[in-house]
Amino acid sequence: MKNKMAYPLEEISAFAGAVLVGDKEKIITGLNTLENAIDEDISFLSNKAYESLLATTSAGCVILLPDKQDFFVGNKLVTENPYYAFAKVSELFSTLAAASGEVHASVVFGSSCQIASDVDIGANVVIGANVTIGRGTTIYAGCYIGDNTTIGENVIFYPNACVYGNTFVGDNTIIHSQVVIGSDGFGFAPVRDSRGSWQKVYQLGGVDIGCNVEIGAGTTIDRGVLDNTVIADGVKLDNQIQIAHNVRIGENTAVAACTGIAGSTTIGKRCTIAGAVGIIGHLTITDDVHITAMTLVTKSIGQPGSYSSGTPMNRTETWRKNAARFNHLDSIVRKL
Amino acid sequence: MKNKMAYPLEEISAFAGAVLVGDKEKIITGLNTLENAIDEDISFLSNKAYESLLATTSAGCVILLPDKQDFFVGNKLVTENPYYAFAKVSELFSTLAAASGEVHASVVFGSSCQIASDVDIGANVVIGANVTIGRGTTIYAGCYIGDNTTIGENVIFYPNACVYGNTFVGDNTIIHSQVVIGSDGFGFAPVRDSRGSWQKVYQLGGVDIGCNVEIGAGTTIDRGVLDNTVIADGVKLDNQIQIAHNVRIGENTAVAACTGIAGSTTIGKRCTIAGAVGIIGHLTITDDVHITAMTLVTKSIGQPGSYSSGTPMNRTETWRKNAARFNHLDSIVRKL
Amino acid sequence: MKNKMAYPLEEISAFAGAVLVGDKEKIITGLNTLENAIDEDISFLSNKAYESLLATTSAGCVILLPDKQDFFVGNKLVTENPYYAFAKVSELFSTLAAASGEVHASVVFGSSCQIASDVDIGANVVIGANVTIGRGTTIYAGCYIGDNTTIGENVIFYPNACVYGNTFVGDNTIIHSQVVIGSDGFGFAPVRDSRGSWQKVYQLGGVDIGCNVEIGAGTTIDRGVLDNTVIADGVKLDNQIQIAHNVRIGENTAVAACTGIAGSTTIGKRCTIAGAVGIIGHLTITDDVHITAMTLVTKSIGQPGSYSSGTPMNRTETWRKNAARFNHLDSIVRKL
Repeated sequence: MKNKMAYPLEEISAFAGAVLVGDKEKIITGLNTLENAIDEDISFLSNKAYESLLATTSAGCVILLPDKQDFFVGNKLVTENPYYAFAKVSELFSTLAAASGEVHASVVFGSSCQIASDVDIGANVVIGANVTIGRGTTIYAGCYIGDNTTIGENVIFYPNACVYGNTFVGDNTIIHSQVVIGSDGFGFAPVRDSRGSWQKVYQLGGVDIGCNVEIGAGTTIDRGVLDNTVIADGVKLDNQIQIAHNVRIGENTAVAACTGIAGSTTIGKRCTIAGAVGIIGHLTITDDVHITAMTLVTKSIGQPGSYSSGTPMNRTETWRKNAARFNHLDSIVRKL
Repeated sequence: MKNKMAYPLEEISAFAGAVLVGDKEKIITGLNTLENAIDEDISFLSNKAYESLLATTSAGCVILLPDKQDFFVGNKLVTENPYYAFAKVSELFSTLAAASGEVHASVVFGSSCQIASDVDIGANVVIGANVTIGRGTTIYAGCYIGDNTTIGENVIFYPNACVYGNTFVGDNTIIHSQVVIGSDGFGFAPVRDSRGSWQKVYQLGGVDIGCNVEIGAGTTIDRGVLDNTVIADGVKLDNQIQIAHNVRIGENTAVAACTGIAGSTTIGKRCTIAGAVGIIGHLTITDDVHITAMTLVTKSIGQPGSYSSGTPMNRTETWRKNAARFNHLDSIVRKL
Repeated sequence: MKNKMAYPLEEISAFAGAVLVGDKEKIITGLNTLENAIDEDISFLSNKAYESLLATTSAGCVILLPDKQDFFVGNKLVTENPYYAFAKVSELFSTLAAASGEVHASVVFGSSCQIASDVDIGANVVIGANVTIGRGTTIYAGCYIGDNTTIGENVIFYPNACVYGNTFVGDNTIIHSQVVIGSDGFGFAPVRDSRGSWQKVYQLGGVDIGCNVEIGAGTTIDRGVLDNTVIADGVKLDNQIQIAHNVRIGENTAVAACTGIAGSTTIGKRCTIAGAVGIIGHLTITDDVHITAMTLVTKSIGQPGSYSSGTPMNRTETWRKNAARFNHLDSIVRKL
């Protein structure tokens, strides 16, 4: 059903799991915002702030909550979860093509690879020895897939992503451009000489990545020192995230961009970690924890809930006065 | 006039827009600091801290402010904006070669591309379908330019940069290595099942990048969900910046390294955002706003000016005592 | 001795510089944690928290401190620095192969290159003009090494790393995937027109990288404006670090992931900079300084020791109340 780019509303409502109120045969050719939609487009209302646009939108159909349906006179898809229905519909209008079995002539294979027959592999991809790739997977140009890597079915690797090797990638996982998987963790032993030099700890582990994972552009995931680094099923990682060696991230946890997680930290299931968060090493964070943007997590978290650190933004002039007081806070309080 | 690497001072002064006081025919072959310059070099004074070096420098010419000219006895270029004149002169000594029309034999082209005749394209570049590239543009080795991308004139893509597709890049724009443009934004709808799983929101928009933009190494720019992500003319982005889907950055705004800007935030013109700043999503920041390093911006900014968050650095021992008090600040104040 | 993957304990103890107590001829085939080790594995105790595992581990040998040897009845390697001995042993079990002189047919060389005979160069590597590569060096697939670059002996470049050019890389240095070396620094002069436009400062310097340096995946190092950016011998840089133009980092300093160092800052020897630290430009940090995670360094540091900024993490609800007070801290203190 995908990629036709013209669907009757009946088909869309079935795919989205929503109740159609209106013309079953109405043909929809696009998805757009309430503001920009034309009569051939479907749109959605999931944020109350845009409710007034229901009166003026030109959309040919709107996805909305049951208690909003009276505010829109046209065709509608009614559902308790409009944002989810919108997400489903977005899949219908995606231009991603299914893999067709094209392997570019320039692709380099190592020994003993097992590649399913319908896999697409783009120009200049380099694949090591003992690599297995499941059916329906697409590997775009310029990727590097190192030795002893197993890639599941319907996986996508976008251009120039790299896997060092000894990695498992589950089905339906998406890996974006410039991602690095399996790089050396940051492990060095002090030599205890006068120059302060370091002895490298060679990294002997691998990386396990589950099914339905997404890994954003420029994110780096180091392999384990001895065991594996683990990204469980359904984990969503945004761009430019750093995952150090032996980190373990639980099922369906989502991590926003620019966050760094230091070595051997374990994060539970269904957590949401906002952007630019830092989490130091060797911590355990339980399930259902939420961390707000730019928080530094320096101790384990045993209770679900939301956690934060930092100070509020202010005019620099005002902030500077408050910050100067912070620098003497202990002595100020002692004097009280 | 570029790349000759030997210029009479008269030519340099005209190019830099500064007034020459001294020998018009003096030949200059390099640009250097006051400390390291030799007699064949031109140098500059734009920071008062280095003023005393005017007495000792061996430079064959110095760019300086009118009120500094009495402190240097040699040839000088006098201007109200010495740093700008220095920047102009730096162009004269850059070794960047003009594009010459060389397309490496290994380059892969999709269908219906329109490539100007004098474009340089390096080894292993992969270009999708319906790509247009304007005259004088250079695309270095290993880049990926996806379908439906239009690249203007005199653009540079450094090695291994990636464009997913549906992107417009204006004239004279510079894109550094490992940049990713057009990756999927971080959009997922909660399925509301017991496992906390996510439904991907397929990203259907593109990216518009203006003229005279520079995008630093490793920076990632996601494409829009439905509309486009927009980087206006003259914007300067440093390395390892994250720009989420549907962000809009106004003309001539400069953003320093490691900053992350979350989805749908709009930033005005002529702003300067320092390094490691975090800006959360769906905000509006007006023109002429300045954000200091590592600030977290959590609300819209309607007034020009400078904004900050965070606490000052201190000895860890002292900091720890103050930070412990911060953790009880509300109850301390309530007791007063 | 490397890569045999089966060593008698006598050989291991000599390589690790530790005293063997036990069976010299015992064959060891792997390295593992106390928890997971089997009888053919060697393990180690360097963290007191795992001491109780000495009673239950199945390891065929344990590396430990002299005062711990009575707690383990099997074979042991006794040393004052067990973590260092473990690191040495990790090298024995690394699967890194020595370079063998294979240069893939697709490699592109510029003019006047000098490549040692036993260098390995992977598929699709592009090497510019006047590049020198020393013996034993490995350059993996997809790397770009620009003009006028000198690479020492036994260096490793992992896939898709980029060097713009004018770079020196010392012996035994390791450069991970997606690293960028020599990109343009972020230098722009205000034109002082009404639109706030910028004149690019062309970057004319290079990058000097010492021996025994490691540079993590996705790290970016800009070349100098006029002089060089300098990374001294033994420096260890983790993933996704940003090093701006003309930064100088002293011998054996280690920097953790996601840290950014702004232009012209000089850092001393034997410093440790934790993750997600920001260091602004034009500072001088002396030797033996330690910076804790996510600290913003805004002034020079003349005394060794540990430095921090930020506030502790708390429940968001509690944090918010304290943070609100911070925003009025100066006026609160004035009223006291």
